[in-house]
Amino acid sequence: MAEAATARRSRISPERAAELYDAVLDLLREVGYESLTMDAVATRTRSSKATLYRQWGGKPELVARALRHNKPASLADIDTGSLRGDLMRMATLQDDCKMEQDHALMRGLFHAIHGNPELHQALRQLLIEPELTGLDAMLRRAVERGEVTADNPALEYVIHMLVGGFAARELIEERTVDQEFLIKYIDAVILPALGV
Amino acid sequence: MAEAATARRSRISPERAAELYDAVLDLLREVGYESLTMDAVATRTRSSKATLYRQWGGKPELVARALRHNKPASLADIDTGSLRGDLMRMATLQDDCKMEQDHALMRGLFHAIHGNPELHQALRQLLIEPELTGLDAMLRRAVERGEVTADNPALEYVIHMLVGGFAARELIEERTVDQEFLIKYIDAVILPALGV
Repeated sequence: MAEAATARRSRISPERAAELYDAVLDLLREVGYESLTMDAVATRTRSSKATLYRQWGGKPELVARALRHNKPASLADIDTGSLRGDLMRMATLQDDCKMEQDHALMRGLFHAIHGNPELHQALRQLLIEPELTGLDAMLRRAVERGEVTADNPALEYVIHMLVGGFAARELIEERTVDQEFLIKYIDAVILPALGV
Repeated sequence: MAEAATARRSRISPERAAELYDAVLDLLREVGYESLTMDAVATRTRSSKATLYRQWGGKPELVARALRHNKPASLADIDTGSLRGDLMRMATLQDDCKMEQDHALMRGLFHAIHGNPELHQALRQLLIEPELTGLDAMLRRAVERGEVTADNPALEYVIHMLVGGFAARELIEERTVDQEFLIKYIDAVILPALGV
């Protein structure tokens, strides 16, 4: 199955795929996930709906792949030699303007997840799981370097602290996360909880 | 204005208001916020729509007041004499079954906030702000007792850590928060970040 999917996918060049992904993100920003149709993607990118379905399977996977393509880097690519360095690199991967744009996109998608299990599944597989794996590797290296003790109970809650920074910044403070906030939050909350 | 509102409100007995709030919560669970109508509330409670509007102003305020009525206690009512005691009391205010029921309700409402500024405003005023005030008082007492230093930078992020516990438990772990999780999370994350 996976090989067949790869073979199907290879029919579209990476440049053409990038064009399609950009168009999908534009449409997502304009109309939101619920109102985005494969017809609109086909029209805007002058492709056939049959090609889109053959290549991506459906709207949830196309959207998830477009978002993944849009990510500047993954946590798995970060390895500065210290935990604080890794977290600070994570906080500054995107400039504030890009972070605000992406945050608006992700907020809309987060709400669309509610009642769209296929979208949740696609985002989980293509966006969330790879970042969780990258975060686990980052924390494992910190333990191996002796920066964090292996039995520190906060190790399993780093993702909760991170999600809380983003969610409460929006829900309670009604502001968007920016680099300055992330840097302060990492130093005030995440590193102290880990005993660093 | 506030006095006029109180005078209007006093026309309905507390017992009758409690019945109405229970009916609103039942309808919320059955159909969700978007599909809940004042007509349905009026029919189910055998009241007139005019009475509901006169008493509560509209759907957002009626829903927010029903949720507030449903809360077993507020953070502002907790004062055990230690920060850990206060947080543990917070974690065990509701049993797991009630927590799961309420969590399903709040999840639906959280999604309805998106695109409903009046609902967001009503929830903020009647549910979020009182809890934030209660949390501030709890933390101020901890500082006054010398449990937390006044300049601890995590003090302003306790709400972020709490929101993250709930949000990531749902989004990443796809599980509901229960007492056992909250107790572990408080001991692993919140107290260590505050240096307790």
